[in-house]
Amino acid sequence: MPRVSPDHLLARRQQILAGARAAFARHGFEGATVRVLEEQTGLSRGAIFHHFADKDALFLALAAQDAAAMARTVERDGLVTVMREMIASPDPGWLGTQLEVARRSRTDPVFRDALAAGSAQVRQATRDRLHRQRAAGVLRDDVDVEVLASYLELILEGVVAHLAQGRSSDALAPVLDVVETSVRRSQVEVAR
Amino acid sequence: MPRVSPDHLLARRQQILAGARAAFARHGFEGATVRVLEEQTGLSRGAIFHHFADKDALFLALAAQDAAAMARTVERDGLVTVMREMIASPDPGWLGTQLEVARRSRTDPVFRDALAAGSAQVRQATRDRLHRQRAAGVLRDDVDVEVLASYLELILEGVVAHLAQGRSSDALAPVLDVVETSVRRSQVEVAR
Repeated sequence: MPRVSPDHLLARRQQILAGARAAFARHGFEGATVRVLEEQTGLSRGAIFHHFADKDALFLALAAQDAAAMARTVERDGLVTVMREMIASPDPGWLGTQLEVARRSRTDPVFRDALAAGSAQVRQATRDRLHRQRAAGVLRDDVDVEVLASYLELILEGVVAHLAQGRSSDALAPVLDVVETSVRRSQVEVAR
Repeated sequence: MPRVSPDHLLARRQQILAGARAAFARHGFEGATVRVLEEQTGLSRGAIFHHFADKDALFLALAAQDAAAMARTVERDGLVTVMREMIASPDPGWLGTQLEVARRSRTDPVFRDALAAGSAQVRQATRDRLHRQRAAGVLRDDVDVEVLASYLELILEGVVAHLAQGRSSDALAPVLDVVETSVRRSQVEVAR
């Protein structure tokens, strides 16, 4: 077996993840067979499963990537920005896969814990940012941060469901403007 | 064959629909086999399919019932009230079935048209009510009715997805208060 550098290993891992993401998006979780994963990654099953224990591990690694990226965006720009990015370049196939698999987490503790860790990261980032905004005086102050966080999360669930069903995102940009203003202090209040 | 009255036929039809709804909610659309439908309705397959052509027809009749009921509630009390009723007595099984089947409407024109007719009824009722509220001066007037309608519909999609995944609805009541106030004219404006 040839010796490989850590950089090479990391690049190979990324190649597998990118191919797997495309495979899941195009064929769904069940439909992404080992054969399909080989085609989409350009690698043999031996190479793929050298890096990931099985298809579940592949999916969970992708979900963890997404959660980490989402938490970073929330931290910096807020949950509404995450939604704006989703509607700007929707990936209905991949979102559909996530909903397909989310159901499994009801009966499968490994899945539930892995997905819950990612959600907790995003939930925490959302609350941290809202608390910072409240301290800065830009957030409406007549409603608890926890309620505003749940409000934004409910809208995110709507956006994901909407896009996962392959529905048009054309009408959603002005809707997100309404969402954004409804968590801010109103200009009327600011002027008083 | 014994002669039956129209009342009896209608009652029988309702009995089948109620049993089918329970069967779909408990077992999902695929899992609700003819055997399961017989058990839940207490009727033979012959009796069931005397009233409905097939399982698809049964499901679509239930979806049409729901859409008609939802449109009536929207007409009278608005879409937020529909959501409040959903979170007060959620039926995750039935909602999950609807999401399961919604995917089929992408490839099946009969399903698409049947479900679209119901959605159109609810969409129209939502817009009619918002226009009446605008005329009455209780709706915020800085955003188009169409955008406010899409906003409420996106939140409904979030509520349905949330409940269909079996997630707790405890946090949602105060969230719907935020939603409700965010489409109204603010008290500050009203006072001016």
